[in-house]
Amino acid sequence: MEFSSKLIEEGVQAFASLPGIGKKTALRLVIHLLHEDEDLAKSISEAIYKLRTEIKYCKKCGNVSDKDICDVCSHPARDHQQICVVENFRDILSLENTGQYKGVYHTLGGLISPLDGVHPEQLNIESLISRVQNDNVQEVIMALNPTIEGDMTLFYISKRLSKFPVKVTALARGVAFGGELEFVDEITLARSLQSRQPYENYITGPHQ
Amino acid sequence: MEFSSKLIEEGVQAFASLPGIGKKTALRLVIHLLHEDEDLAKSISEAIYKLRTEIKYCKKCGNVSDKDICDVCSHPARDHQQICVVENFRDILSLENTGQYKGVYHTLGGLISPLDGVHPEQLNIESLISRVQNDNVQEVIMALNPTIEGDMTLFYISKRLSKFPVKVTALARGVAFGGELEFVDEITLARSLQSRQPYENYITGPHQ
Repeated sequence: MEFSSKLIEEGVQAFASLPGIGKKTALRLVIHLLHEDEDLAKSISEAIYKLRTEIKYCKKCGNVSDKDICDVCSHPARDHQQICVVENFRDILSLENTGQYKGVYHTLGGLISPLDGVHPEQLNIESLISRVQNDNVQEVIMALNPTIEGDMTLFYISKRLSKFPVKVTALARGVAFGGELEFVDEITLARSLQSRQPYENYITGPHQ
Repeated sequence: MEFSSKLIEEGVQAFASLPGIGKKTALRLVIHLLHEDEDLAKSISEAIYKLRTEIKYCKKCGNVSDKDICDVCSHPARDHQQICVVENFRDILSLENTGQYKGVYHTLGGLISPLDGVHPEQLNIESLISRVQNDNVQEVIMALNPTIEGDMTLFYISKRLSKFPVKVTALARGVAFGGELEFVDEITLARSLQSRQPYENYITGPHQ
């Protein structure tokens, strides 16, 4: 498409550089902004700029925050001896939404993936080790994606932590609630069968 | 969702205020921006801001442009006695992409729609009348959406232009090229039948 204005072209390119937004959608967004009040474009522009330039990461757990220490880490009622290790703050959001977890978090900032050039030293693993070492941590819960990268990271960290007197656990894997067995993949189903649980565990779970 | 940072929340709200982008997609875009280089966020922010604050509209036809008079209006080879009336610059883009039109344009900025509170005086209709009056215009081609609003606008403008010695035409309506008759709606099919054309028109058309 050839635009009659360089500004339109730059606007379309800007939106189209975001994931999941194509040129046509980008043009629709540009037209929307032109039709709307000038304040809307200004506030969106400002929000995007501030987002990237002013964002802070909690010095303790690496979660995004407006302060040096995030709300979870500074909360007095949280159990600081229980650390849940996640890939990024998106996972913290999901876990917090369950309302079930009362410990603190640790954000790795990614998963080990040699193929993508992500090695352990690029992730926040050393800071996790030193937290375990210094903060009298009792349990490290690994809440990583059930993928090859997640499992690799899980393996690496559990190995690094094996010399400390800390319990390392991982999220339970099995069939999801509300799903149908017919559509569960073979590996998940086979593993769920192997790690079957006594019936009592079902009725005392958080979903009741 | 409760975010651990006000900046994240504002970023999500900014993206979610755009049409077709929900909260989940907005959060995905925010995470993308945080992962990417700071320059990306800066350039997107700047493009959006400039887009809305620096955009100019051609003083002649109302098309978006970086100059006072747009490239189409200032082109010496364009036929200035033929004006194609469109709703917005998006339609100009579509028409220019056909490569078939050599006249100039006039952008209304909307369509008459009493239900939405859009009346003739809010659109660029007076400027069209004065162009027809002063520029020795031979033909006005109405290229408006085939909707009730489009037809209403078409009717209003053709009535206003009836006292001038100018030919008013409208885009042909009929079955689209490459479509299947089975899926054409009844009104379009009935009208195509009524305004059937001699076979010669088919083989001399621009699609050959």
